[in-house]
Amino acid sequence: MAKGITSREQDFSQWYNDLIIKGGLADYSAVRGCMVIKPYGYALWENMRDVLDKMFKDTGHVNAYFPLFVPKSLFEAEEKNAEGFAKECAVVTHYRLKTDPNNKSKLIVDPEAKLEEELVVRPTSEAIIWNTYKGWIQSYRDLPILINQWANVVRWEMRTRLFLRTAEFLWQEGHTAHATKQEALEETTKMLNVYAEFAEKYMALPVVKGVKSENERFAGAEDTYCIEALMQDGKALQAGTSHFLGQNFAKAFDVKFSDKNNQLDYVWATSWGVSTRLIGALAMAHSDDEGLVLPPAIAPIQVVIVPIFKGEEQLTAISAKVSEIVLQLKAYGIKVKYDDTDNARPGWKFAEYELKGVPVRLAIGARDLENNVVEVARRDTKTKESVSLDGIAEYIQNLLVVIQESIFNKAALYRADHTTEANTWEEFKTILDTKGGFVSAHWDGTSETEESIKTETKATIRCIPFDAKEESGTCIFSGKPSNKRVLFARAY
Amino acid sequence: MAKGITSREQDFSQWYNDLIIKGGLADYSAVRGCMVIKPYGYALWENMRDVLDKMFKDTGHVNAYFPLFVPKSLFEAEEKNAEGFAKECAVVTHYRLKTDPNNKSKLIVDPEAKLEEELVVRPTSEAIIWNTYKGWIQSYRDLPILINQWANVVRWEMRTRLFLRTAEFLWQEGHTAHATKQEALEETTKMLNVYAEFAEKYMALPVVKGVKSENERFAGAEDTYCIEALMQDGKALQAGTSHFLGQNFAKAFDVKFSDKNNQLDYVWATSWGVSTRLIGALAMAHSDDEGLVLPPAIAPIQVVIVPIFKGEEQLTAISAKVSEIVLQLKAYGIKVKYDDTDNARPGWKFAEYELKGVPVRLAIGARDLENNVVEVARRDTKTKESVSLDGIAEYIQNLLVVIQESIFNKAALYRADHTTEANTWEEFKTILDTKGGFVSAHWDGTSETEESIKTETKATIRCIPFDAKEESGTCIFSGKPSNKRVLFARAY
Repeated sequence: MAKGITSREQDFSQWYNDLIIKGGLADYSAVRGCMVIKPYGYALWENMRDVLDKMFKDTGHVNAYFPLFVPKSLFEAEEKNAEGFAKECAVVTHYRLKTDPNNKSKLIVDPEAKLEEELVVRPTSEAIIWNTYKGWIQSYRDLPILINQWANVVRWEMRTRLFLRTAEFLWQEGHTAHATKQEALEETTKMLNVYAEFAEKYMALPVVKGVKSENERFAGAEDTYCIEALMQDGKALQAGTSHFLGQNFAKAFDVKFSDKNNQLDYVWATSWGVSTRLIGALAMAHSDDEGLVLPPAIAPIQVVIVPIFKGEEQLTAISAKVSEIVLQLKAYGIKVKYDDTDNARPGWKFAEYELKGVPVRLAIGARDLENNVVEVARRDTKTKESVSLDGIAEYIQNLLVVIQESIFNKAALYRADHTTEANTWEEFKTILDTKGGFVSAHWDGTSETEESIKTETKATIRCIPFDAKEESGTCIFSGKPSNKRVLFARAY
Repeated sequence: MAKGITSREQDFSQWYNDLIIKGGLADYSAVRGCMVIKPYGYALWENMRDVLDKMFKDTGHVNAYFPLFVPKSLFEAEEKNAEGFAKECAVVTHYRLKTDPNNKSKLIVDPEAKLEEELVVRPTSEAIIWNTYKGWIQSYRDLPILINQWANVVRWEMRTRLFLRTAEFLWQEGHTAHATKQEALEETTKMLNVYAEFAEKYMALPVVKGVKSENERFAGAEDTYCIEALMQDGKALQAGTSHFLGQNFAKAFDVKFSDKNNQLDYVWATSWGVSTRLIGALAMAHSDDEGLVLPPAIAPIQVVIVPIFKGEEQLTAISAKVSEIVLQLKAYGIKVKYDDTDNARPGWKFAEYELKGVPVRLAIGARDLENNVVEVARRDTKTKESVSLDGIAEYIQNLLVVIQESIFNKAALYRADHTTEANTWEEFKTILDTKGGFVSAHWDGTSETEESIKTETKATIRCIPFDAKEESGTCIFSGKPSNKRVLFARAY
């Protein structure tokens, strides 16, 4: 047990909280269900955001910003969306506080400053955005609109977990408008593929792409596509969603366009989003009992260098050599930190950077200097080796690629080991209660069966995978006929 | 009057609104006082944010994220800060809506979902942040904390203007914690200098650095330093502030640290911020009656290329050449757009990019192709010249530097012309009512005099400039002795 991290075996949930808190990613706050994202966690988010932002722009999207507040009358316009979010939204009712006449050092809500119409703090922005698009769209020439927004949203969840489920979270939400159904469907798929590529290539997180069942669909969508990842406790986590909204919001907000033949039609829509929840997924998928394990592609610090020295003279000599190494690494675009602080021992530093998941640690002492070598330690495999300083930057660059792949492969292997076919109800329950993970099983396609399975096992349909094969079978629960397997799991 | 822009002479205020709306920077929204930042405006903000973010990081700061909501009990803890913002804050009182029993398609606030403690939507984050810092700071080893946050804030202003004063706006707020008063003072100055450098070097906006009088100080600060800019109508605009908060917040939230001698003391604080208001300042300082004039250093598009062609064949030949030019420009890091759309005439495009303030326009036709030249038009001076395509990228790169300087110099000249010394009350009033601008005058140092001058002339003390010389004189209003001039102006 390093740095007071609970082990996974002992208490997975506490292990996760320890990772987040002690790893310096986030902290609890004075506001129920809201967290503080600490600098190290925010640096991780910045790296993720920058990669995603570039991917969005490379696929033709631009950023914009819409109001935080949604007037109640707009919020309720799309009925299903409103119904889905009304139960958990923060509502602004007043615009002023005043001094409490009974206690001058206290403030109270000023009853004279009641809003004529309440404002909902956005839980998602379809309503405010489609109300705006109404003014922007008249003709097919105004389409498509391909806008993304980086923003905070609020969903008043009753049970919260750092990053995974917080009352306020940061996310991006794409909101696109199209002239045809086909184009909107293509956009929905395109952005799901962007998310999948991001998850696998940068977060080293293998994901299953598929479509949600009706029960799990976004409120107001015709279809919700998703990427689903598997955590180390065998539970699934929805890592991103892309919604085909049909003409639902265009109808709710009366957004029509005239096509090339001057015919009026409602506009087709998509929306898609990922959030700071991904940080929770990242931590939970790869880390170990010593702390975080971060993939090099998004790690805030990729390489940390720790000097091993006795006295000022040794440190000076080591630091001179390290300056050269740092320059070489930076020339390769590697994010490197040299920790020459003298208020902690090397062993303490080693544990600290293990806890923080820094992919590579270099340790260098006086003897290494003489031998022109450095000790290279991998965070993911906990292996160490002595490496020549000649060509060290290129060596590290290659190593970072190897580590990135290795973390992905480990997660992919885990997922393969924890994706099991079940053909009977007993098998299904046994798998869930023993190894967990994804259970691939036949389902009769009804919401009632899905609901019953959830009630009995807490497992939900994570998705109907895009690559599911046609296969005749019978629903594990109802025994009714089915023509493809879907993925069940207990989930975050 | 291009593109329906009102001229400055006709109606300065309407001219500004036309710039913002027709230039595609922002739009009104369905939420009182809130705006939509459109893609072009947001791209400008991204450029400004990226430059500032790098400047913050280069001066040792890191980013983090704190909750949107401030519980009322924390909000009221620092008395002056609370008093300053209580009058204009949005208050969340409920966390759920429910179906209106009298109208199933409507929602109402669920009275059973009333919060035990109201939440204020942050108008600024000192309270929530210092409440958090309390848990992070025990010893001098935990200091300094140098954190910045990019966020949205809400101030329920009664009279709003796009970008200049909106109920919700985007900003950054730095919140630093220090072991000594001296260090906090140095930080306050350092960040004001960062803002001044950013305004002058990137926004081409000359600013006066100084300190606010007590009346204009940030609520809860010991001292507010500011940068003040001058707009084309002779009104001043506060473009950024850096506050020395003393130990006020540390005392309000009981944040103490033990120093090297194990003595307990309260922590010293600063905060500093700039906002999307800067976009309004930028637009208002440089633009003309044809539209926006954007400095190259932050323009979303630096160069636009418009083909002049008849028929597909000419366009193909021109586009082939333009592809080469685009590659050359991009190799110099120049942001270039080729507008080869065929649904608008060149004249329409010219006016459109003038409206949008693109610094350089290249126009190229069949004849130019033959002669290996291109027509280069500067947005700021509206001058045109024919330039050889050999070495065009280097030419444009140099031109962008010249334009950046030229825009700054024009604004600096305007400011010099509109900074006037007044030695009598009559002179003071005459200057304000005729040419406007900054009026440099003696003031007796009292809030009462400042208040009286404001009541009579609407002019306020913008700042006591850091570089104000010691000079004996008498207050223009009270006739009492004064030892330095301060800057008055009517202001946004």
